[in-house]
Amino acid sequence: MVALHLLHTRKELLHMRDESYFADRERVFMFQSFDVTASADAGKERLKRLRSGFDDVGIDCLLVPRSDRFQGEYVPDSEARLSWLTGFTGSAGVALVMRDSAHVFVDGRYTAQVRQQVDLDVFTPQDLIKTPPRTWLIDNGTAGLRIGIDPWLHTIADIRAMEKSAVELGASIVRLGSNPIDAIWDDRPLEPLGRVSVQPVTFAGSPSEEKLAAIEADITKKNADACVITDPSSVAWIFNIRGSDVPHTPHPLAFAIITPGKDNALFIDRRKIGDEIGTYLSGLTTLREPGELQAVVSALGKDGASVMIDPNLASVQLGDLIVESGGKLVEATDPARLSRAQKNAAELDGSRAAHLRDGAAMVAFLAWLDAQEPETVDEIAAVRALEKARSSTGERLQMPLKDISFETISGAGPNGAIIHYRVNTQTNRSLKSGELYLVDSGGQYLDGTTDITRTVAIGRVGEEEKRFFTLVLKGMITITRQRFPPGTRGIDIDVLARAALWNAGADYAHGTGHGVGSYLSVHEGPQSISRRGLQELLPGMILSNEPGYYREDAFGIRIENLIIVEDAKPLEGGDKPMLGFETLTCCPIDRRLVVAELLSDDELGWLNDYHANVRRALTPLLDKQTDKDWLDAATQPVGSG
Amino acid sequence: MVALHLLHTRKELLHMRDESYFADRERVFMFQSFDVTASADAGKERLKRLRSGFDDVGIDCLLVPRSDRFQGEYVPDSEARLSWLTGFTGSAGVALVMRDSAHVFVDGRYTAQVRQQVDLDVFTPQDLIKTPPRTWLIDNGTAGLRIGIDPWLHTIADIRAMEKSAVELGASIVRLGSNPIDAIWDDRPLEPLGRVSVQPVTFAGSPSEEKLAAIEADITKKNADACVITDPSSVAWIFNIRGSDVPHTPHPLAFAIITPGKDNALFIDRRKIGDEIGTYLSGLTTLREPGELQAVVSALGKDGASVMIDPNLASVQLGDLIVESGGKLVEATDPARLSRAQKNAAELDGSRAAHLRDGAAMVAFLAWLDAQEPETVDEIAAVRALEKARSSTGERLQMPLKDISFETISGAGPNGAIIHYRVNTQTNRSLKSGELYLVDSGGQYLDGTTDITRTVAIGRVGEEEKRFFTLVLKGMITITRQRFPPGTRGIDIDVLARAALWNAGADYAHGTGHGVGSYLSVHEGPQSISRRGLQELLPGMILSNEPGYYREDAFGIRIENLIIVEDAKPLEGGDKPMLGFETLTCCPIDRRLVVAELLSDDELGWLNDYHANVRRALTPLLDKQTDKDWLDAATQPVGSG
Repeated sequence: MVALHLLHTRKELLHMRDESYFADRERVFMFQSFDVTASADAGKERLKRLRSGFDDVGIDCLLVPRSDRFQGEYVPDSEARLSWLTGFTGSAGVALVMRDSAHVFVDGRYTAQVRQQVDLDVFTPQDLIKTPPRTWLIDNGTAGLRIGIDPWLHTIADIRAMEKSAVELGASIVRLGSNPIDAIWDDRPLEPLGRVSVQPVTFAGSPSEEKLAAIEADITKKNADACVITDPSSVAWIFNIRGSDVPHTPHPLAFAIITPGKDNALFIDRRKIGDEIGTYLSGLTTLREPGELQAVVSALGKDGASVMIDPNLASVQLGDLIVESGGKLVEATDPARLSRAQKNAAELDGSRAAHLRDGAAMVAFLAWLDAQEPETVDEIAAVRALEKARSSTGERLQMPLKDISFETISGAGPNGAIIHYRVNTQTNRSLKSGELYLVDSGGQYLDGTTDITRTVAIGRVGEEEKRFFTLVLKGMITITRQRFPPGTRGIDIDVLARAALWNAGADYAHGTGHGVGSYLSVHEGPQSISRRGLQELLPGMILSNEPGYYREDAFGIRIENLIIVEDAKPLEGGDKPMLGFETLTCCPIDRRLVVAELLSDDELGWLNDYHANVRRALTPLLDKQTDKDWLDAATQPVGSG
Repeated sequence: MVALHLLHTRKELLHMRDESYFADRERVFMFQSFDVTASADAGKERLKRLRSGFDDVGIDCLLVPRSDRFQGEYVPDSEARLSWLTGFTGSAGVALVMRDSAHVFVDGRYTAQVRQQVDLDVFTPQDLIKTPPRTWLIDNGTAGLRIGIDPWLHTIADIRAMEKSAVELGASIVRLGSNPIDAIWDDRPLEPLGRVSVQPVTFAGSPSEEKLAAIEADITKKNADACVITDPSSVAWIFNIRGSDVPHTPHPLAFAIITPGKDNALFIDRRKIGDEIGTYLSGLTTLREPGELQAVVSALGKDGASVMIDPNLASVQLGDLIVESGGKLVEATDPARLSRAQKNAAELDGSRAAHLRDGAAMVAFLAWLDAQEPETVDEIAAVRALEKARSSTGERLQMPLKDISFETISGAGPNGAIIHYRVNTQTNRSLKSGELYLVDSGGQYLDGTTDITRTVAIGRVGEEEKRFFTLVLKGMITITRQRFPPGTRGIDIDVLARAALWNAGADYAHGTGHGVGSYLSVHEGPQSISRRGLQELLPGMILSNEPGYYREDAFGIRIENLIIVEDAKPLEGGDKPMLGFETLTCCPIDRRLVVAELLSDDELGWLNDYHANVRRALTPLLDKQTDKDWLDAATQPVGSG
């Protein structure tokens, strides 16, 4: 594939990549735009039209979730019903349109954003965590209320929770045959037709046939005849393919049905598939059009098959189809989920290589940043420079950047304190001397997905910033160095990243780490290091390790490395083999912000060893002497003299 | 009340306390006996008689749990069906008697003990955790199997889990009208009639009327008309009474029904209650005989009342009664549970006083131990000396020891590695020079319940023992010093006690801390510090903090202090108020075992401050100069010269 470059024109770019990808975006020739895309203007009129159809389908209110039928983090523009209706563009949320009011439920990350984006005359923001629609309805709904849903857009687990509320309220849930938004969405974008590619086994590590055999065995073990795979990342992983239907996550939007001992089926628009890939896929599975899914599932049901789906990932429509056609519903975790999370040797090697390359790009960026005159760089310019560094480093090292892995968080001064900050032309801020600058970014390469956060000093910053930077660093190092017995879950170690902050009267309002895919989604389950991390940490899992500290209206700090769970090893003098972490991310941590006295000798030793390794590993990958000099200075030992 | 003393004769003792308490025990004038009480001899014959009654009641197998109808940790001898049938005397377990086999399910603590205690010709030990009866039956049962239970002895939650297995197996659960063991138990001890006393409001901190008002409000809030309180510790706490029906936990075995706006009822044998206490209780509630419970619950049901019970604490019999009589079952946590866990100021002051007194007793014991010639003391002698120290210190300080809070764990050398070791005349071991000695014990005083573990060096011990002692101590100190934000649960901080051990390739196979009652059970929920500790830590909760390390056949280490959750306070330089812990336990930690270099300056500072406080607090409470001298030496600073 071809690398994206800042110097290409938009026209060149569209030739180089799939048209569909950028068709409805103004991207300034980058993977990220900074425009204010949301508009609240149309909300009032669209609400009116939407409500006028309620009687025809026999509902009194309608739930409009952010999700599409694949329940992924990113949705294509053609599925962006929530933002079309309300103007709200956040990555999570749901609207509830009543006859005489309308509500947009968002979590704490989006409290401010939703108020800017929606027309507050017609939409009332609500708290998605404390009073989600199912709770809100109990307090505000009335008996007999008919709650409309598009059963493709809600998971089985979600609707089960909603049904409990409906019973309590004396209301009913109406599963609609078609989506009322679609009926009035005149200018709806076309479905994406992102080109599918094969993920070479060199990087995938295991041929699709092997993965299919293991999954079929799992399905049989659970006494099921078939399994509908509804997570596009699982589909991509199983068949060793990648796609470009949604931004930043290279999976194709597709379902699959795995039927042990019989023909499998992959439901995907043939227009996304070239001849060569068509031949490859036909060797593995029957190719079917997406529109055939319902008929195939119903046919399984009519045959009395036991069909397995993951109630937390699959739409209630699929569950209903299986049962209503006469099949038996077998609820179980997506059989690819855990295997996908435990990377094989090739995936880990690929990720190591991707992280060296990405580290070289980060060094080029950070060296450039340090060389700029104060106040000459703003947040947007920094994002552009970073993407340029990733693109050119990828090209030079012959493994081009395929995409960024998410929209770069580039926060100067107080903007750094907004955890999910996304700069646009209205919020753009200059990087000022005396302030911290937080940059959280990542790249998608054929051999791996990266995700790194560095917080750097612009000029000389205060002691308070340095103290909290060091406490955050202490937490990051503690997780990195920790050994732990088999059976340990993410929830069990999350506190190790927080303990020093807690003892200083501080905390951060997010988890410590999430799973990361292998040239797939930068957010991958089931593994995490957080209060909800109930998944056991298993060898080969990739996780982020990213404690932070955010002082509102002042500064933000986050330090993030990716880590791999290593096999359990015996430790000298111990009696129990212990797992541990290998660090993937390779990039200096701003030593100007480290207060050496706040770290233990072991922690300081880790930092200096890490920097020595970073210098050794990255120097050969840099092309400019100025970058090498910068790296040399940035990796000198701390606190030893 | 009267203090127990080692020098009293058994006869004197029985006059001083309730006869029922010791009626069936040989206690050598102590709260603890060291006899081998279990006998496997009768198992075969009793099984035969038990099975011969199966057909009459229409069952194919019978579950025999350890629990009585109150589901507490200790059961009176009259309810010890499991040990009567099998010989197994552990504190948790269940037997499953099939027609042609019988099984005793125990957890990892009792794997060795069960093999010693039961007749292996007729009983097969099984793993209670990996394959509990409900799982075992799926693998080994047959369709149509009729599983007999005494519905008074199983909780609603337990039987729900069992019913799932029964459905899967095609079996049925038969609720028996009377217990088949009782029908053949010729020499069954009488029910305990332990005297009830009033817990003075000086120690209880809140009059019963206040507690009742709060609980009634909670019941009303949950839309219930009545609540059956089935946990005797909750009953004791609500009515500010104590009892002596079971060893070591001073609650009376009694149920209560709280009916907001109507007469409450306390179901308790009148023979346990003197006139004065009868008058006190009659002012609070109607007194009813235990046998009236069913009729009263049924009457509530017939009136169509909504009756609240805790499905994790209440027997399935009560749940059935409510529903079958026409009532509505409201499932909710015992309304006294959380209030009981959050001690009020009087309870906390009482506990502080109890811990000073208990610390003085521990110092007297440890000073005595250090003065003995090597090999002249064995584990049983140590238990006797410790109980004597508690008794005499309690008498001298005019707050007598009412009971020990559990059977002392007194383990020398390799016996220290058995986590729930209970010494008897067969296992008794001499305290040898060069070995560690672990002693875990506690006292019941009118003003509080204590629980303390110290591990001490007998003579000079090896470097390995010292290294692990210090790592365990580091974990204990880390928990003690940790600050944490509101909302933190026990599960979130458990790892802080383990991190140093994990990094040394070691761990301990138990939780870090349990809740402790206020002159009630030494094991109290819902609070804990463990992998299962989902309860938020709230101000006033008392917990143990007891990491350990156990090297099988070699040595055991545990260091345990009790701690109180303190109110959230702002910290200097921080922006979030943080909770923390106050240490209750006041007793030196063996400084001869501390490797100062393994502790951070902060940790060493904590240890030396703690010892200075212990010296200051306990010196005035000691009567012998030798004890004062010992304390002075035992609390000298570590590592500062």
